[in-house]
Amino acid sequence: MKVTKFTMAEAAFERSPGQDGDIFTGNLADERHGGPITVGYGRYGPDSRLEADIVVDDVMIVLEGRLTVTSEAGDHTAGPGDIVYMPKGNSVTILAHAEGAVTAYVTYPHWRVAVS
Amino acid sequence: MKVTKFTMAEAAFERSPGQDGDIFTGNLADERHGGPITVGYGRYGPDSRLEADIVVDDVMIVLEGRLTVTSEAGDHTAGPGDIVYMPKGNSVTILAHAEGAVTAYVTYPHWRVAVS
Repeated sequence: MKVTKFTMAEAAFERSPGQDGDIFTGNLADERHGGPITVGYGRYGPDSRLEADIVVDDVMIVLEGRLTVTSEAGDHTAGPGDIVYMPKGNSVTILAHAEGAVTAYVTYPHWRVAVS
Repeated sequence: MKVTKFTMAEAAFERSPGQDGDIFTGNLADERHGGPITVGYGRYGPDSRLEADIVVDDVMIVLEGRLTVTSEAGDHTAGPGDIVYMPKGNSVTILAHAEGAVTAYVTYPHWRVAVS
C-alpha cells in the first residue's frame, strides 16, 4: 500500500450498524484495501446516542464538537483534539452533546469484519 | 484495559528518534500498557523536516497547522482534520509548513519497539 491522504469530504457515510440514531461512519481504509487497520470518520448528530460492545481496539480522535463516553471506567468527556481509546472487550455508551461531534477513528483489526 | 481519554496536555514529549530537528512525539498508550496499538501526539516545529522509513502501519491525524508528506506516491499536503495513512514499508519525508503542526497518531504494532 502507498501513502494516502484522506479528507472528510471523501468519506461515504453510512448509518452506524445496529442502531437507528443520527450516527454515521465512513471508512476510508479497511479490509478492502489490505493492511491491518481501518481508518475513517464518524459523524454524530446533536444529542445522538450509541451503545456498543467494543470488539476491536478502537481509537477515536475528536475533531469537532463534544461527546461523552461512558463505560465501567466512568464518564470521559472529549472535545477537539482529545483522544478516546476504547480497548477491545469494553462496553460503551457514546453520547454526543448538543452541538454533535465529528471524529476520526483507527481500529485494529477491521471493525466491520468483527461486527458482521 | 479500560476506556481512557487522552489530552495533549498529558503527553510527555520526547525528541523523535534518529533526528535532531524540532520534532517531538508523546506516546500515551504503547507497549507499556498492553493492547496492540500505540496512541500519541506529535509536535512539529515551523519548517521542521523528518525523514523516516515506516516500519509499522502509521496513521497521522492533523489537529493544527499543516504538513506535506512526500513518498513514492508523491506529495500529500494535509491540514486540520485530514488523515495521512503511512503503511508499513514506505519511506517518507514529512515537512511542516511555516506554522508548524500538531498531530495525533495511531500505529499498529508499537512503533517504538519496531525502531529500537
